[in-house]
Amino acid sequence: MVGGGKDAFIGAIHRLAANMDGLIELSCGALSINPDIAVDSAKSLFLPEDRTYLTFEEMITKEKKLGDDKRMDFVTIVTPNFAHFAPAMMALDNGFHVVIEKPITFTLDEAKQLKKKAGETGLILCLTHTYSGYPMVKQAKAMVKDGAFGKIRKVYVEYPQGWLSRLTEREGNAQAAWRTDPKKSGKSGCMGDIGTHAAHLAEYITGLKITELCADLNVMVQGRHLDDDGNVLLKFDNGAAGVLMASQVAAGEENALKIRVYGEKGGLEWAQHEPNTLLLKWLDQPAQILRAGGNYGSILSSIAIANCRTPGGHPEGYLEAFANIYRNFALTLSARIDGTQPKAEHLDFPGVEDGIRGMAFIDNVVASSASSEKWTKHKV
Amino acid sequence: MVGGGKDAFIGAIHRLAANMDGLIELSCGALSINPDIAVDSAKSLFLPEDRTYLTFEEMITKEKKLGDDKRMDFVTIVTPNFAHFAPAMMALDNGFHVVIEKPITFTLDEAKQLKKKAGETGLILCLTHTYSGYPMVKQAKAMVKDGAFGKIRKVYVEYPQGWLSRLTEREGNAQAAWRTDPKKSGKSGCMGDIGTHAAHLAEYITGLKITELCADLNVMVQGRHLDDDGNVLLKFDNGAAGVLMASQVAAGEENALKIRVYGEKGGLEWAQHEPNTLLLKWLDQPAQILRAGGNYGSILSSIAIANCRTPGGHPEGYLEAFANIYRNFALTLSARIDGTQPKAEHLDFPGVEDGIRGMAFIDNVVASSASSEKWTKHKV
Amino acid sequence: MVGGGKDAFIGAIHRLAANMDGLIELSCGALSINPDIAVDSAKSLFLPEDRTYLTFEEMITKEKKLGDDKRMDFVTIVTPNFAHFAPAMMALDNGFHVVIEKPITFTLDEAKQLKKKAGETGLILCLTHTYSGYPMVKQAKAMVKDGAFGKIRKVYVEYPQGWLSRLTEREGNAQAAWRTDPKKSGKSGCMGDIGTHAAHLAEYITGLKITELCADLNVMVQGRHLDDDGNVLLKFDNGAAGVLMASQVAAGEENALKIRVYGEKGGLEWAQHEPNTLLLKWLDQPAQILRAGGNYGSILSSIAIANCRTPGGHPEGYLEAFANIYRNFALTLSARIDGTQPKAEHLDFPGVEDGIRGMAFIDNVVASSASSEKWTKHKV
Amino acid sequence: MVGGGKDAFIGAIHRLAANMDGLIELSCGALSINPDIAVDSAKSLFLPEDRTYLTFEEMITKEKKLGDDKRMDFVTIVTPNFAHFAPAMMALDNGFHVVIEKPITFTLDEAKQLKKKAGETGLILCLTHTYSGYPMVKQAKAMVKDGAFGKIRKVYVEYPQGWLSRLTEREGNAQAAWRTDPKKSGKSGCMGDIGTHAAHLAEYITGLKITELCADLNVMVQGRHLDDDGNVLLKFDNGAAGVLMASQVAAGEENALKIRVYGEKGGLEWAQHEPNTLLLKWLDQPAQILRAGGNYGSILSSIAIANCRTPGGHPEGYLEAFANIYRNFALTLSARIDGTQPKAEHLDFPGVEDGIRGMAFIDNVVASSASSEKWTKHKV
Repeated sequence: MVGGGKDAFIGAIHRLAANMDGLIELSCGALSINPDIAVDSAKSLFLPEDRTYLTFEEMITKEKKLGDDKRMDFVTIVTPNFAHFAPAMMALDNGFHVVIEKPITFTLDEAKQLKKKAGETGLILCLTHTYSGYPMVKQAKAMVKDGAFGKIRKVYVEYPQGWLSRLTEREGNAQAAWRTDPKKSGKSGCMGDIGTHAAHLAEYITGLKITELCADLNVMVQGRHLDDDGNVLLKFDNGAAGVLMASQVAAGEENALKIRVYGEKGGLEWAQHEPNTLLLKWLDQPAQILRAGGNYGSILSSIAIANCRTPGGHPEGYLEAFANIYRNFALTLSARIDGTQPKAEHLDFPGVEDGIRGMAFIDNVVASSASSEKWTKHKV
Repeated sequence: MVGGGKDAFIGAIHRLAANMDGLIELSCGALSINPDIAVDSAKSLFLPEDRTYLTFEEMITKEKKLGDDKRMDFVTIVTPNFAHFAPAMMALDNGFHVVIEKPITFTLDEAKQLKKKAGETGLILCLTHTYSGYPMVKQAKAMVKDGAFGKIRKVYVEYPQGWLSRLTEREGNAQAAWRTDPKKSGKSGCMGDIGTHAAHLAEYITGLKITELCADLNVMVQGRHLDDDGNVLLKFDNGAAGVLMASQVAAGEENALKIRVYGEKGGLEWAQHEPNTLLLKWLDQPAQILRAGGNYGSILSSIAIANCRTPGGHPEGYLEAFANIYRNFALTLSARIDGTQPKAEHLDFPGVEDGIRGMAFIDNVVASSASSEKWTKHKV
Repeated sequence: MVGGGKDAFIGAIHRLAANMDGLIELSCGALSINPDIAVDSAKSLFLPEDRTYLTFEEMITKEKKLGDDKRMDFVTIVTPNFAHFAPAMMALDNGFHVVIEKPITFTLDEAKQLKKKAGETGLILCLTHTYSGYPMVKQAKAMVKDGAFGKIRKVYVEYPQGWLSRLTEREGNAQAAWRTDPKKSGKSGCMGDIGTHAAHLAEYITGLKITELCADLNVMVQGRHLDDDGNVLLKFDNGAAGVLMASQVAAGEENALKIRVYGEKGGLEWAQHEPNTLLLKWLDQPAQILRAGGNYGSILSSIAIANCRTPGGHPEGYLEAFANIYRNFALTLSARIDGTQPKAEHLDFPGVEDGIRGMAFIDNVVASSASSEKWTKHKV
Repeated sequence: MVGGGKDAFIGAIHRLAANMDGLIELSCGALSINPDIAVDSAKSLFLPEDRTYLTFEEMITKEKKLGDDKRMDFVTIVTPNFAHFAPAMMALDNGFHVVIEKPITFTLDEAKQLKKKAGETGLILCLTHTYSGYPMVKQAKAMVKDGAFGKIRKVYVEYPQGWLSRLTEREGNAQAAWRTDPKKSGKSGCMGDIGTHAAHLAEYITGLKITELCADLNVMVQGRHLDDDGNVLLKFDNGAAGVLMASQVAAGEENALKIRVYGEKGGLEWAQHEPNTLLLKWLDQPAQILRAGGNYGSILSSIAIANCRTPGGHPEGYLEAFANIYRNFALTLSARIDGTQPKAEHLDFPGVEDGIRGMAFIDNVVASSASSEKWTKHKV
């Protein structure tokens, strides 16, 4: 693991998620650029001293020299955005598979370089777009694909948060500090951090691609340097229209990610705050409530079922969704190591293509917001 | 009453709403342009034969000649949009106050003529933007005004319906037929019918004015002549940003009007489907659930309380909201007749200015949607 | 109307409900035992002076002498419980139909006398068990009757309120004062006031009869003279088991009446706070959300549809439910007056039998609570 | 681990929960009484062959002989109820701490023997009453203790499930088979399986003890040998009244565990299906929505915070609640091993006393249900 020391947030989440299924073990780490934090954090995680590294370069170099049965199998990168590319590239260059926290890189160009490298090396790059790990999100995708709703016409996707309603970045909040700093976060704040999740979710569930967008990004809190709010009109490749709303100044909201998709015959609604429920709405028929793990015969898709750990009535949450990405990645990796074909449902985790689309999304919404033209092509 | 015969929808709603408080009595009507329907409908409403009219011209002319104590006090116009202006203008010209179903007229110009006439005659024109009649909408408005949320930054307002997901207008649905016919409905379908409600609600609650908009109107059902869907980015006069979403092809939705407003300190959420609840969200404090009629000391504003008929726990609905508009109008009218000053809370009903802003909204979203410029000024 | 002066609660509700459909007009009243209040209240309701009475005896005697076309058609009694019987009996004796607020009388014996009298005179007695007027309650009843859920096994019905969590009756609250006074309210406080509603709802929806009960009534607020809380185990005539919970000290609750019924194949859930929704739960199938006024072909029963005034998406509430009872009563009465057969759906309003079961319920839960025997027969 | 082979349910849950925090590692197991399943299951969990045992006796005997640094630290018992006691007793006798799935034993007497043994040996016995592991349940407990609601008056606790609405036990469902078999499950089916959870939750949150109960247990599905449904009236040691409802024939329900507690000043509501929310209801004040991980200053108790892994907006579920019990147990155990004092919040896991109260609850509800006396003392 690169990054994820005591003072970080998402590293701990990655570890919880990776632990859960007993398939992955943290074996070594360069957990912080601050050596004291790196050592302390490793100790508290029971890492052996000789695999506690101070830099990712040291880690990759030394691990490579270990025997096949000892060496780490893959590298997880949980540093701030600007520090994704270098360890990822070095890992791929040295034969290690990679898991990266989203957004994949700092720039679109870096993402394209990673794609090229992954293609050349044949190594796996997994991107933790967490929300696509929820079973009912997978169910939604499966139902759209099966044509349950007919042709898709409308997509509403929203991700309101409230935690940046003040200048939290100047109140000692490390998470806020790097996320609002253009040098560490990239071109966009809110859209890069959570808008990309929303865009990914919309494309993941509908199977459609955004082709054009019209963005209005805002800095609502005076003194901030990156957008903390934005609204985007969307066009999809089948002619569907959409709206993407993301905000970090929706005071009082947590992570209220929600998506609604409507087709000719009906629609679906899924919200992260109650992730085990998928609401199905039907033209001229009563709405239905699908529940993760529900005992409904063939109504739940095999991929939704494969991503549940418990029967209906045992709420699973964010960590399980995260763990699904790790589990599917790990099982794909195991199959690779064993020389067998991974199962289709295990291949269902986000990768370098999703990362590239995310980086392009950031570029394009920033460009659109600055433009007086209504529509900007979503070039990737 | 002009319009509202047996084959209509909104006329019956107006009568239920007007009846409720025992302040208004239906005394005469020109209920349909079809004489048979006009007569039959009048009979079933217990109207006397001599006050059952076949045209609004006949009604206004004959009623005017009746004695002061017998003559109708005001005219309610519930015809399709294209037939609002003529009876409204004639009523005003002949000294009758007017209640009009929204949108106020067919064109912005007609609305401006009504405003001029109302100004000249000093007569009252009430516009039934129903949703502003809900007590918790009034509570929301009062709290924003009192600064409970600080400066407003964001507005999300949405009105998804699903009933036009098919070509319902060709299936014998009279409601659908005139609403999708440019000659009867006006320049816009969805935006005129329900987008105007959403825009009115946003301005009513926030006390802000929309200054710029960027619209994407769509015809999602092939063969239809007017927009059945649209998304609009908004800018408000205090710098707040917003999104207005309206759709008649959100298959499976009823009248899912919902508004969320966020300021520096917190936000509010109100949805028409559970209108007695106002959700308050606070930065760094637990959310609160305000209920209509709640026994909370001074938390509920006097205007919210004045628009509840029952104590907390007795759900009031659409008809009561509608009846609030009629009641406030009637009490204002009574005060006028009695030569007294109407109470502030009775003056709280939509009028000709709201009508004009609504017509301008229709004009401007249609223009914006056709434009390649991102932003269109919301000129009124 | 007997009772219902300015200082009362339920009288105003009756008037709103009776007004709504334009079928009923308040023609006279003995609105209070306090002559000043009686006169003032009548004035503010636009009653003529010569039909403003000071006692119910005066009202019934004088109205009887009026001509057929002038005389009131029926008497509504909205006094406290102890004052139901005398005016009801006198009304029936003098040929007037009667509407009574529940509970029907002060004692079971009085209720039986009214039944006898109603039988002898052939007059109609309507009892306003409001909650059975909601369309989705009627839908629930229809679905149970149609066997949608198979044999019924379980009933949970609950009515938590919080308004008597303090000694509100000593704080000048007139509603609380008479309801907690054994001389005005009867043997039971909470069970008489709201437990009877819950019991009625359970029997109404299931079509079953309670045969045995085991009650635990409590006085939770020191100094109070009647039960303010109670839990009752139930047995139904088909072998189903149930629980009835009522409380007036569930601090923070409004009128959280809710019922759940389970059969072999599925269950239903309805809650008064969102009365337009009926939740259907199915064994091994996704739950469904039925909405009042929903456009579902034949899924909504004709009786549910007949009791909706608006299409789906226009929430109807407590006043509409109340108005349904009045409307059905009025249409039955009209049919009677016209010498025609009332429609089946108009006959669906509570009457004297429901009143008797309610009074017996009060007697039996009070007896059971005092008994050390587990089960008490629900004799009527 | 004893039990928990491939064909079992709860064993896998225990492993997921124990894995999550990286504090516990599965080191050995006697995973099934079927040797093939035992071996296969161990293989798929990467257990070494020499620590794959065929019986718990073998496991305990052989592990005891291993060195201090190699030997397992504690035994988890996840067999059906009838097979809890023997391995638990043997483990304690041989110096191993114990984690047991609830109910603790087959009979109350066995539970008392375990208590005695645990007392003598000073070893820790942890009982996985999962629901007390949820952070918002701990928050509820803390608020009641702090007097936020005043004196507690009412408790409603309910646990409706629907999965035994048919004779599922004869359809090859192993879970259903042993749970409905008196020889494997014990005296009670539904009350033993889920009623005990509800009773534990009520006592855990309120800090009160049930002193008397009045039970009505039912066999709703013909041919079944144990209760599949039951309703129980409760009295608590402070005079509060309560109702406990548990059912396995509430067709269409999952694990709809829900508790409501009301005191003089307000109440609380928590439901397992949305476990991250705690609803607070207040007398004469708006209700509040507390969310796990919410950033509310001092409103969330330290114990609730200590049992969250993520900030607000990242839903945690059943596995995290389960993992909290394991984590608190493990941290208490670590402190014990390190010779330090465990922190107060780590000592917050259910133990042998809870197990004894659960077994007594089973005995007493079965006795009460058979009795014609209304109230049965809850002797322990």
